[in-house]
Amino acid sequence: MHIGVDYYPEHWPRERWETDARMMAEAGFNIVRLAEFAWVLLEPSEGQFDFDWLDDALAVLARHGIEAILGTPTAAMPGWVARKYPETLAMQKDGTRITWGARKNNCFSSGTFRLLSERITRAMAEHYRDTPNVIGWQTDNEFGHPVCYCDSCRAEFQAWLRRKYGTLEALNATWGTHFWGHVFGTWDEITIPDDPNRHNPSACLDWQRFYSWLNVRFQDDQIRILRAACPNHFITHNFMGLFHELDYYELAKDLDFVSWDNYPVWGKPAIPYNAAAAADVMRGLKKRNFWIMEQTAGPGGATEYGRNPRPGEIRKIAFQQVAHGADGMIWFRWRTCTTGREQYWHGLLGHDGKGLRRYQEAAQTASDLHKIAAALQGTTVRAPVAIIYDYDSIWALRIQPGYAGNRFHADLERYYQALLRAGVNVDMIRPIDDLSAYRAVLAPDLYILPDGMARALSNYVQGGGVLLADSRTGVKTETNLCHERTLPGLLSDALGVTIEEYESLGDPTGPQGFSYRIIGREALTGEFTGIRTAEWARATTAQPLATYEEWHMRPYVAASRNQFGEGYGYFVGTVAQEERFYDLLIADLLRHAGVTAPLAPPPGVEVSVREGDGKTLLFLLNHTDTAQRVRVPRGKVELLSGETTGDTWTLDRYGVAVIRWV
Amino acid sequence: MHIGVDYYPEHWPRERWETDARMMAEAGFNIVRLAEFAWVLLEPSEGQFDFDWLDDALAVLARHGIEAILGTPTAAMPGWVARKYPETLAMQKDGTRITWGARKNNCFSSGTFRLLSERITRAMAEHYRDTPNVIGWQTDNEFGHPVCYCDSCRAEFQAWLRRKYGTLEALNATWGTHFWGHVFGTWDEITIPDDPNRHNPSACLDWQRFYSWLNVRFQDDQIRILRAACPNHFITHNFMGLFHELDYYELAKDLDFVSWDNYPVWGKPAIPYNAAAAADVMRGLKKRNFWIMEQTAGPGGATEYGRNPRPGEIRKIAFQQVAHGADGMIWFRWRTCTTGREQYWHGLLGHDGKGLRRYQEAAQTASDLHKIAAALQGTTVRAPVAIIYDYDSIWALRIQPGYAGNRFHADLERYYQALLRAGVNVDMIRPIDDLSAYRAVLAPDLYILPDGMARALSNYVQGGGVLLADSRTGVKTETNLCHERTLPGLLSDALGVTIEEYESLGDPTGPQGFSYRIIGREALTGEFTGIRTAEWARATTAQPLATYEEWHMRPYVAASRNQFGEGYGYFVGTVAQEERFYDLLIADLLRHAGVTAPLAPPPGVEVSVREGDGKTLLFLLNHTDTAQRVRVPRGKVELLSGETTGDTWTLDRYGVAVIRWV
Amino acid sequence: MHIGVDYYPEHWPRERWETDARMMAEAGFNIVRLAEFAWVLLEPSEGQFDFDWLDDALAVLARHGIEAILGTPTAAMPGWVARKYPETLAMQKDGTRITWGARKNNCFSSGTFRLLSERITRAMAEHYRDTPNVIGWQTDNEFGHPVCYCDSCRAEFQAWLRRKYGTLEALNATWGTHFWGHVFGTWDEITIPDDPNRHNPSACLDWQRFYSWLNVRFQDDQIRILRAACPNHFITHNFMGLFHELDYYELAKDLDFVSWDNYPVWGKPAIPYNAAAAADVMRGLKKRNFWIMEQTAGPGGATEYGRNPRPGEIRKIAFQQVAHGADGMIWFRWRTCTTGREQYWHGLLGHDGKGLRRYQEAAQTASDLHKIAAALQGTTVRAPVAIIYDYDSIWALRIQPGYAGNRFHADLERYYQALLRAGVNVDMIRPIDDLSAYRAVLAPDLYILPDGMARALSNYVQGGGVLLADSRTGVKTETNLCHERTLPGLLSDALGVTIEEYESLGDPTGPQGFSYRIIGREALTGEFTGIRTAEWARATTAQPLATYEEWHMRPYVAASRNQFGEGYGYFVGTVAQEERFYDLLIADLLRHAGVTAPLAPPPGVEVSVREGDGKTLLFLLNHTDTAQRVRVPRGKVELLSGETTGDTWTLDRYGVAVIRWV
Repeated sequence: MHIGVDYYPEHWPRERWETDARMMAEAGFNIVRLAEFAWVLLEPSEGQFDFDWLDDALAVLARHGIEAILGTPTAAMPGWVARKYPETLAMQKDGTRITWGARKNNCFSSGTFRLLSERITRAMAEHYRDTPNVIGWQTDNEFGHPVCYCDSCRAEFQAWLRRKYGTLEALNATWGTHFWGHVFGTWDEITIPDDPNRHNPSACLDWQRFYSWLNVRFQDDQIRILRAACPNHFITHNFMGLFHELDYYELAKDLDFVSWDNYPVWGKPAIPYNAAAAADVMRGLKKRNFWIMEQTAGPGGATEYGRNPRPGEIRKIAFQQVAHGADGMIWFRWRTCTTGREQYWHGLLGHDGKGLRRYQEAAQTASDLHKIAAALQGTTVRAPVAIIYDYDSIWALRIQPGYAGNRFHADLERYYQALLRAGVNVDMIRPIDDLSAYRAVLAPDLYILPDGMARALSNYVQGGGVLLADSRTGVKTETNLCHERTLPGLLSDALGVTIEEYESLGDPTGPQGFSYRIIGREALTGEFTGIRTAEWARATTAQPLATYEEWHMRPYVAASRNQFGEGYGYFVGTVAQEERFYDLLIADLLRHAGVTAPLAPPPGVEVSVREGDGKTLLFLLNHTDTAQRVRVPRGKVELLSGETTGDTWTLDRYGVAVIRWV
Repeated sequence: MHIGVDYYPEHWPRERWETDARMMAEAGFNIVRLAEFAWVLLEPSEGQFDFDWLDDALAVLARHGIEAILGTPTAAMPGWVARKYPETLAMQKDGTRITWGARKNNCFSSGTFRLLSERITRAMAEHYRDTPNVIGWQTDNEFGHPVCYCDSCRAEFQAWLRRKYGTLEALNATWGTHFWGHVFGTWDEITIPDDPNRHNPSACLDWQRFYSWLNVRFQDDQIRILRAACPNHFITHNFMGLFHELDYYELAKDLDFVSWDNYPVWGKPAIPYNAAAAADVMRGLKKRNFWIMEQTAGPGGATEYGRNPRPGEIRKIAFQQVAHGADGMIWFRWRTCTTGREQYWHGLLGHDGKGLRRYQEAAQTASDLHKIAAALQGTTVRAPVAIIYDYDSIWALRIQPGYAGNRFHADLERYYQALLRAGVNVDMIRPIDDLSAYRAVLAPDLYILPDGMARALSNYVQGGGVLLADSRTGVKTETNLCHERTLPGLLSDALGVTIEEYESLGDPTGPQGFSYRIIGREALTGEFTGIRTAEWARATTAQPLATYEEWHMRPYVAASRNQFGEGYGYFVGTVAQEERFYDLLIADLLRHAGVTAPLAPPPGVEVSVREGDGKTLLFLLNHTDTAQRVRVPRGKVELLSGETTGDTWTLDRYGVAVIRWV
Repeated sequence: MHIGVDYYPEHWPRERWETDARMMAEAGFNIVRLAEFAWVLLEPSEGQFDFDWLDDALAVLARHGIEAILGTPTAAMPGWVARKYPETLAMQKDGTRITWGARKNNCFSSGTFRLLSERITRAMAEHYRDTPNVIGWQTDNEFGHPVCYCDSCRAEFQAWLRRKYGTLEALNATWGTHFWGHVFGTWDEITIPDDPNRHNPSACLDWQRFYSWLNVRFQDDQIRILRAACPNHFITHNFMGLFHELDYYELAKDLDFVSWDNYPVWGKPAIPYNAAAAADVMRGLKKRNFWIMEQTAGPGGATEYGRNPRPGEIRKIAFQQVAHGADGMIWFRWRTCTTGREQYWHGLLGHDGKGLRRYQEAAQTASDLHKIAAALQGTTVRAPVAIIYDYDSIWALRIQPGYAGNRFHADLERYYQALLRAGVNVDMIRPIDDLSAYRAVLAPDLYILPDGMARALSNYVQGGGVLLADSRTGVKTETNLCHERTLPGLLSDALGVTIEEYESLGDPTGPQGFSYRIIGREALTGEFTGIRTAEWARATTAQPLATYEEWHMRPYVAASRNQFGEGYGYFVGTVAQEERFYDLLIADLLRHAGVTAPLAPPPGVEVSVREGDGKTLLFLLNHTDTAQRVRVPRGKVELLSGETTGDTWTLDRYGVAVIRWV
């Protein structure tokens, strides 16, 4: 198993390198990522390359048995690029070019920048193709922003649209430009829709797609060079989990595997649900396991820093990712840098370079991971439940939230967290994926819903699947127009409701927010509070699971279950303020889907299963700082301790266990 | 009576037009507004006109007996205008031109844009002068913003100032440019005062006046053309109620009547006081009845939408406007658009085009209005009380609120709402209007008070009128200089107080806010809390109605009444936190003015009276969602039900009644 | 003693001048400041001067025995400067030049502006060198902002860096530009680091130093001219107390004395601790007494105004400054202006020009001050305790607060206020100052700590001094790099703690904030709440004074005292929410330092001592609006009343007393 750190030899005197490599090896580390911000050190002036220092660093590492991933260093352009080619700097909305001196400040449609990127990528690839301890590449670093508003981006956008739509007539029709008299007479009338509060939502969505495509194209340029020069190296990129700016499915497509940067520790201690959800998204991008390219090693931050991981937390955070499919573990970063913007992004070592608690905890984790590496081999997560994770909907809801504060991820969280509390693994899938592998599919906020997908979802239910949809599911076509069908449109039969009207209840924490009292039925015992949104949804064939108390809302269902064909369609028409609402709802849904969790975890304990090659591994993660006793299958071996389980297993605070179930 | 919808045939296939027109007719609608954003469809390329589609739509409508108002479509410039004439786009403070792709994005001093506006206006006017079912025009759409900061605007501003002041000496004196050494040596040194926190308040006020004038001039260009071409058509504009950017008196001057856009339904349900106040302002612009050009038909919004009007609310909202003087009722809009920025500005029909609850409620309202149309004929509101509504003061207070959070409308609300709760109708008037028609005149925050007006107000009191002034009334001259007289200046005799000092008490919700305890006297029984502002006002001849408890404030009055000549001058020197303060104060004021409300409405019920042609109509509006019983004159006919009143009349939730009193 | 007002004869008709001067003289005033915004009136067009009006005003004043300080009028450029030399206007981040029409809108690296400044300064100096009642000069007005981002500033910055660092290699090393690959290849690659959230912190700190230097250089240009022309006049500048933008030590260096503008009255009444702290900073700039150039005369404000000083408060505010070392007292301003931006910055007279309460209170204060003037002669504050006040740390913490909300002044306040409540005077000193004069030195947030200073502090403790350091003290080198030593670095022996890790606890008022329970020990009896920051600091030789209750924090000290050599090193590793924590801590520290307060003031009463020439004057200031009885030395003369003290002295609300102790 590859375990290691992000390492910046260029930050430290050469005399220190040997010490660093020795301490890494002592910690059980066997891999580093290098050089992803070192462009100016590798190409100090245009076309003049200097690989000596990196060669030397690699040699030191090699002597300690440490392999390396190299980053193409294009995320931070050298000063000479900005000086010689100011047009490579992104243009801001105010018409000024971004001031050079940070990172990620280039325009992605700049032909100059693409040429410069190709040259340094090719030079590195050719130089390191045969270096024995170089095993792979990371493209650039954390793709995303800045958005550039220059004339070149505008022209590229126009060209992209022309390729997509063919004719202006098609574009005018697709964007509905008859509204506000915005029919285009020529391609060059098309502007960058830079304000989602003022511009056409269809244009805004295409602009987002174009911007994502620009990034993917930029990466493709590099991949092409790397594949040609280094056929034996893998290529990955460090993704950012639940990041919304890019279509990660597209960005992952031509990579060998996905890796990502996991920073769940910031403020008040809390269960890191999002780190689990992000891991499931990352695993879903290519439907295979992933690496952690940057793992939390201490308080993060630049201008301000956050909370320090508590004793045991660094290990627990790493194991959470392994439990969800991580096959490589690289901490960011080795030693906290004394210079530059990220002086407060703390590594395993402090500024003083001493190997204290955090270093020791990572070493312990490495030792534990090496211990279970063989058992992990060939296993991954195989979830009975899927959630549809769709960038079009994510983007379209950011352009028009509709009801106050509606973000896809906020909606996702409510269901995801209930599933995690129920102890059930989840796959994050694309709307076009095959659904038949899943007992249940959740489609919260699947706002963009082309007819084909709607039919597939409906067929899935009819054939025995269990589907959940909620407020704002299915509102829009693929081009961000409103469907003309009465909602929920082609899902009406599957869900058994018809949405006559709908409204926003406002920000519940603001002076204009209000709520509706909800009365649960059947399994949803109790009273709840509907906030943020209310669909005035009338049950046609559905069974109400919750209804409203307010006089004018009595005809409508807040939640319902509909038997349709062999399956069930669940509908939720509001947002419940109470977590219990989602726990009860998910329990009912799992019951009807015939899904059983491997075990019932106590509050604060997460369970996740990896299986494959005839093995089943049960991961237990204690997210609390008190010991927790968990009922487990008896007589199995816990791999970290080597002990055999009784009826229960006790997890220390922030403790983890890996039980070989099968 | 004209009742109908805003209609966009260009949004829908021609096959649908017939259905739309039939459904409109079935709902009792007889008018639509058309084409106010259709410039590019009417003039697809420069100077090439296409009226066919609109002719056809008018013909379909005509077959169903529906007449039309046409909008001059200049609020949304075609793409070709921006492409060919980029100088027509407004310049923002950061020096960039606004990105084309929304609406209201033109510079109003652009000669090019004025010429283009004149051409499309003339073409439409000449084409539709004789179309039988075209009866009138709406100029542009919702005048106001953007403010443009281009060199052309700066030059126009300099020219406007030169016309206004004649000499630089006069301008320097009037603006008091000796402060901070800002004496102008040449006209072209004058800048656009773009930051009211940094620039000369006198310059800021003139800039606001200039900006308003630019809009009015632009409308005048269109009116001139329309009058010449279509002498039999009326001309109106859709105003925005309590909108602060423009001098609406000037904008209304050359129109036949005012119409306005009423959207009182957003967040948490509440009594729509502002819709009533706005109606009174609209009626005051030309001292005659008005139309509703856009009436709430569903949840409004673009990026986010708001609350859905509840059953009965659409009708009640419409009747509130009729009660305050509306003579036409046009809902925005017919069918909710599936494309573009305003997909969530909901019409009577949803995206699906079905005539559901909101359509039916509007149809019911139309039927009710047609029923009382004859009775309404010749009637309007004749209020016993006036409030001075003055754009100079509105603007000057936005430039310098003085005490924290002081806005004219916030101050207005406190008094207006108390009058509405008391059941008394209000006229909103200009400061230069004849006051003798009113028993009482309220002048809250009449911050700009030229000497002539002050004398008129003082004479009004002396002659038997009742006047109310409050904190910051009379502070400034017409050019936004501070008066040199001890405040309240020329109102000192009428009010019987002298303001020795004054202060801000801060934002009461912020950490720096504080308050003073107030002890009421006479009719103002009880204790109150003075917030935001405190005038250290000593009563000279006035009778204290409330005084301060704080040690250093004991010499000063928080509220007082002064007999002066035949009348009374009320003064309020602070803002009371308690609504009761204003109810008691207004009760005392009405008593001294000899004003009696037609009846005493219970909380949440509004009463308004229209009279004329020997008729008196009593409107009752239930703003609550529970039934309300109101004591009414016995033995009168309620026109909607045809029933005769007993001692009380019961209003359903959101119910309305129209009682023929005389 | 010099007592008077800021006076603007140019705001008022000449006929009024005589009245003004007479009223000033009657109030006991003998000095005015004049002309600091009158450039356009003195030089109406380029190179044409008009001094007549000012000559006349000075003559009127002279007849009433009033002397004058003249301001060089460069803080508000004439319109003709902006018109003829637009390059003199500061460029904003968006690339536009600031709109002329306010003040402080020039670029300080503009050679043109410097030449224009020199010309008007020279013309004034030569004209007034021999005017008998002109006695001194104020340079410009309130140096600070705007920051300019023009190419000229960028080039000056590059040149300044070249002078400072000599070679690019040195700069690259000092800034640590290997981070993010930002190594400079040429000087002109250096940009203005305009975003502290994105740019290199070392670059940001140098930019701040450069910007400060630009202001100082601009002042130096004027001083050189004034010294040459007017050798008998003093030169000062009106500083702004705790203002953070400039290095005030540098700005004060070539002045004769410091004066400053004191505005402690804004919102909710509170003890003006900051006015006391600011006075101590002002006194520290040149280690001598200072003047008040603008003293609070009424509600301040431009767009909004604040609270009115209450009866007695104007006098108490003035005496607080005298108690801390003020030797001149000038109120801002004589009469409230009726024109321009600062219509609401209220003077002693209102807009109406009447001499009411505020005038009378200032006259009373003047009379009191004249009464004690002889006693004040030769006295100043001699504090037993010093706090290190360092602009490098102030700036570096604004660039990177580290823990949420960490500002130097916020940290300073906690300790300063406790010292003031304890009745102990404080000197604010530079880190390079001699420490031996003090019994105790506090170094809160001394974030930038070069090794030399750290050694001096350590030696100070070893030699018997008492030092307090806290969270984030000593983190950075002079060039804003992180020290590589384990913190607290060279202070480790003196403090007896080692900081293993550290973290931010977040904004305590935000959703992500959390806290740690703290248990006090010894003198710190009780429980406290640690917020914002926690150093995981292990005591090596220190005695714990407070420890954490949280499981993982038990090994660490929240506060400690360490005996080191002959002295004591106090360390505080968190921020306590409770004021009591600081009172107990400071009491313990003073005890160990052998510092005794002259008397123990009751809450709300401040005590300050001036001594010298064999005299000791005890100032008592009642900051509350109730009478306070204070235990005082018996049998001494209170100079304002002439009475002899008993065991106690009673201060009226807002009362002051000056007791001649020795």
